[in-house]
Amino acid sequence: MNFLALAALVAVACQPAHALWPQPTSVETGSTTLKLSPVFTIAVSGLGVPNDVWDAVFRTEAALNKDKLGRLVVGRGASDASSFSKAKTLSKLTLSLEKGAKWTSITSEAQKAPEDRDEAYHLTIPSDGAAATLTANSTLGLYRGLTTFGQFWYEHSGTTYTVDAPVKIQDAPAYPYRGFMLDTARNFFPVADIKRTLDAMSMVKLNQFHWHIVDSQSFPLQIPGFTDLAAKGAYDASKVYTANDVKDIVSYAGARGIDVMVEIDTPGHTAIIAEAHPEFIACPGATPWATYANEPPAGQLRFADADVTKYIGDLFRAVSKLFPSTMFSTGGDELNTNCYDIDEPTQATLNSTGRTLEQALDDFTKSTHKVLQDSGKTPVVWEEMVLDHNVTLSADTKVIVWISSANVKAVAESGHKLIHGASDYFYLDCGHGAWVGDFPTGNSWCDPFKSWQLSYTFDPVANLTADEAKLVLGGQHLLWAEQSGPSNLDDTVWPRAASSAELFWTGPGGNVSTALSRLHDVAYRMRQRGINAIALQPEWCALRPGACDLTA
Amino acid sequence: MNFLALAALVAVACQPAHALWPQPTSVETGSTTLKLSPVFTIAVSGLGVPNDVWDAVFRTEAALNKDKLGRLVVGRGASDASSFSKAKTLSKLTLSLEKGAKWTSITSEAQKAPEDRDEAYHLTIPSDGAAATLTANSTLGLYRGLTTFGQFWYEHSGTTYTVDAPVKIQDAPAYPYRGFMLDTARNFFPVADIKRTLDAMSMVKLNQFHWHIVDSQSFPLQIPGFTDLAAKGAYDASKVYTANDVKDIVSYAGARGIDVMVEIDTPGHTAIIAEAHPEFIACPGATPWATYANEPPAGQLRFADADVTKYIGDLFRAVSKLFPSTMFSTGGDELNTNCYDIDEPTQATLNSTGRTLEQALDDFTKSTHKVLQDSGKTPVVWEEMVLDHNVTLSADTKVIVWISSANVKAVAESGHKLIHGASDYFYLDCGHGAWVGDFPTGNSWCDPFKSWQLSYTFDPVANLTADEAKLVLGGQHLLWAEQSGPSNLDDTVWPRAASSAELFWTGPGGNVSTALSRLHDVAYRMRQRGINAIALQPEWCALRPGACDLTA
Repeated sequence: MNFLALAALVAVACQPAHALWPQPTSVETGSTTLKLSPVFTIAVSGLGVPNDVWDAVFRTEAALNKDKLGRLVVGRGASDASSFSKAKTLSKLTLSLEKGAKWTSITSEAQKAPEDRDEAYHLTIPSDGAAATLTANSTLGLYRGLTTFGQFWYEHSGTTYTVDAPVKIQDAPAYPYRGFMLDTARNFFPVADIKRTLDAMSMVKLNQFHWHIVDSQSFPLQIPGFTDLAAKGAYDASKVYTANDVKDIVSYAGARGIDVMVEIDTPGHTAIIAEAHPEFIACPGATPWATYANEPPAGQLRFADADVTKYIGDLFRAVSKLFPSTMFSTGGDELNTNCYDIDEPTQATLNSTGRTLEQALDDFTKSTHKVLQDSGKTPVVWEEMVLDHNVTLSADTKVIVWISSANVKAVAESGHKLIHGASDYFYLDCGHGAWVGDFPTGNSWCDPFKSWQLSYTFDPVANLTADEAKLVLGGQHLLWAEQSGPSNLDDTVWPRAASSAELFWTGPGGNVSTALSRLHDVAYRMRQRGINAIALQPEWCALRPGACDLTA
Repeated sequence: MNFLALAALVAVACQPAHALWPQPTSVETGSTTLKLSPVFTIAVSGLGVPNDVWDAVFRTEAALNKDKLGRLVVGRGASDASSFSKAKTLSKLTLSLEKGAKWTSITSEAQKAPEDRDEAYHLTIPSDGAAATLTANSTLGLYRGLTTFGQFWYEHSGTTYTVDAPVKIQDAPAYPYRGFMLDTARNFFPVADIKRTLDAMSMVKLNQFHWHIVDSQSFPLQIPGFTDLAAKGAYDASKVYTANDVKDIVSYAGARGIDVMVEIDTPGHTAIIAEAHPEFIACPGATPWATYANEPPAGQLRFADADVTKYIGDLFRAVSKLFPSTMFSTGGDELNTNCYDIDEPTQATLNSTGRTLEQALDDFTKSTHKVLQDSGKTPVVWEEMVLDHNVTLSADTKVIVWISSANVKAVAESGHKLIHGASDYFYLDCGHGAWVGDFPTGNSWCDPFKSWQLSYTFDPVANLTADEAKLVLGGQHLLWAEQSGPSNLDDTVWPRAASSAELFWTGPGGNVSTALSRLHDVAYRMRQRGINAIALQPEWCALRPGACDLTA
């Protein structure tokens, strides 16, 4: 036997053959080969099964036929073929809800508040050919179970099979908020790119799409009653999300167990509104921009102005109607006070009303957040709103950490529920050099690149008391798009963002060495489904788990 | 006027409107709008015009119709439309060779030794509608001129036009070797990906594709007489370059003014040969791999063995027949002596022949290089062959610097012609985290990421005497594929690699601030042609040159 074959044997010995991602909380698998019948079907027992459940069933059956993923071992499964003749055949998977549970759509379950989502499921795949069973308390749980079921199957010479039967899985997520944030304002992403991203998210059980849809550079969202914002603020007429596009994306996400939380960042990050309403924006295009904004162009809402406050409230009400989520992010990051110091209208308003800028910000926040609450939404804000400002926030307001993981403790001490998204662990755009011009030696502000290994080893409750730990809703990877667009979306995000998907589903403490082979599987399967995930290693390593470990 | 329009005006004022890349050595442009006639044609004057010249003419005409690139200003050219009615129309571009020059194919000119390539050309585009003229001493020069001509044109509301007439350009490259290296062994790239890469290379006048085609992880090259290497060493039967694929790629490159230099890295980076010939490989799969190789798997040629030396000589002869280039890289990097210390056959051979390992390496190098010279090839090696080993190299052997730019001086002092490719400036794979497994805190060995600004500001003759400077042939960006594959090829390489294309064509000293707007143009035009170049900045910045500069 030559050394490569030897390495292959070593590999099989040093890792579980199955490749589930995220790893279930409780899983037992065997080593029996089980074939999938050419007439394999997924049955749903019960009456009044929602359409999106049927759609999920059909998509799962289609993927089992289309994936045609060869097992990640030398020969890509050729060595498995010998066992096909003796292998039993699985003809059926039966889905059912636990006794007493009611049939509701996956979409409606996914769009509940994170705390109310039930994603638990129970999956068994016997090795004798008897029907596999999937049960859960909710259709969302059934959907997660279908995703897990789909990860067991490989193809070789026309046979679809698993080598891990029998299987017994009891699974539920450690955290209810497992997200991904995309910025569609610095550069535009067509609807098809967002749908493909939702497909990838659902493959690793992410359940929250945080859509940072507009910013100072462009306003691609077409809002009924406020269409002038996109008409004048989008990069061009082809780079707009219509109300129908939003509806399409929200329902596509919902059917995949994903809720869409929109963000209309205010009062900063709003310069582009000047295109339609110059009267609402302070220090428009002020230079040097670095003095008045974190990114060009400068320009922020004149939030001290009652008309602006009313306008944004009305805007929030209209946007709320487009997004069924219980959550709505109002941003609140990187507010630049220099901009208001030179803005005469703002200074005049503050003087006439006898308020400080902070008092005006408090009024603005209370007023705009009240509109959201009246619309049935829970406000979500970036960390500065609790760490840097003295604004009144409702107790249920959720806070996203972004500047640094060192700020998690302080945010938790505010008593608000928090979402992890610290730049030092979860920013996907770091480490690709400076995007700012005339900066020869510059690198990105959040250097270095955040590897999947780094985010995978993050501890969500580091330095938190037991009570503070209860405030952690989960977390997300984020892609700011200064240097991203459709051309590098998939490979910038995948499979890296899968690391937080497992971190927040399975919980912390995962081992990067054993995780690697499973993450290869995620990347290979994503590529089979048209998602351009990168190669994490030379294929030689991908087919020989452990053989390329540092100390192997 | 609002601030965005204002910013647009500022932008126009602070940069040349035209967007040529690389910048010609001598260029005069006006500011008159000139339309391209719907019946615009490119005429070639002379008899016996080679087919690849006609093909280049047809491709240029096709691109003028298909690019449909909007000018990178606010409105994407809407403000230009008013001048269309008054604008003159260009109906013809005439190509001709200088008096006395002979018609030879672009391919044969491109495949000459770098020192013998003539890429100079002279281009004029009158503003009055008179025919544009392109002259050169060679068809390769005409091809470069066609590429430049193609960069002047934008499209708006069905009109193809330039705003830079009249144009007068006299151009020639500062350095004759301007390359790009791709590793197709760590991960495989289909022929279509390589052709698309050649298209992108030709858009920025790169003229050398350095094909690191095989390595220790896989052997995708099918060589007549040595087909067992790919049959047993390729990742699978679908991941092989047949002799016809090579012929296809070489001719596709030649027609685009690009020479293909193959690299068969020896005696290191050869572990995969053990799949077909275990008897030729020392320390196959030895562990820990890090002791015996820079990357897994360990295994190097038993170069002290006369049979191995003869085999590699025969292999080089066969590979030489597939690649018409005057250059052939034999590698020679990262030779690991520990591997031979534990290899009994090698130790026995050294003892029986009374040679040291270095003496055996000298014999191997002399013998295999002689085969190349007898085949009409100039050997090319990595820097260690002159800096770390005492091997006999012919005076014409060319040396590629890769470890560090700090080694350039020492390589130049060896008296060999050198090619820049230092990892601290030109490695495209750096800064994406560790690919080695079980390495949670690891980043790439050549951190950080090498930005386009960094390579753009490289000085090819730093610390060199005038005579040493004459040894600099040029340089290249390189992509090692441990973490790359078809899914991230384009956006990892483009437009970053265009920075060395301009550095080595126009010469050093370029200004990153004014280069940025032209590089945006390269990226936008590449995307129009199906090459997934990344967005360098938010589109807001791309349409407002200078507005996002650090100090703007």
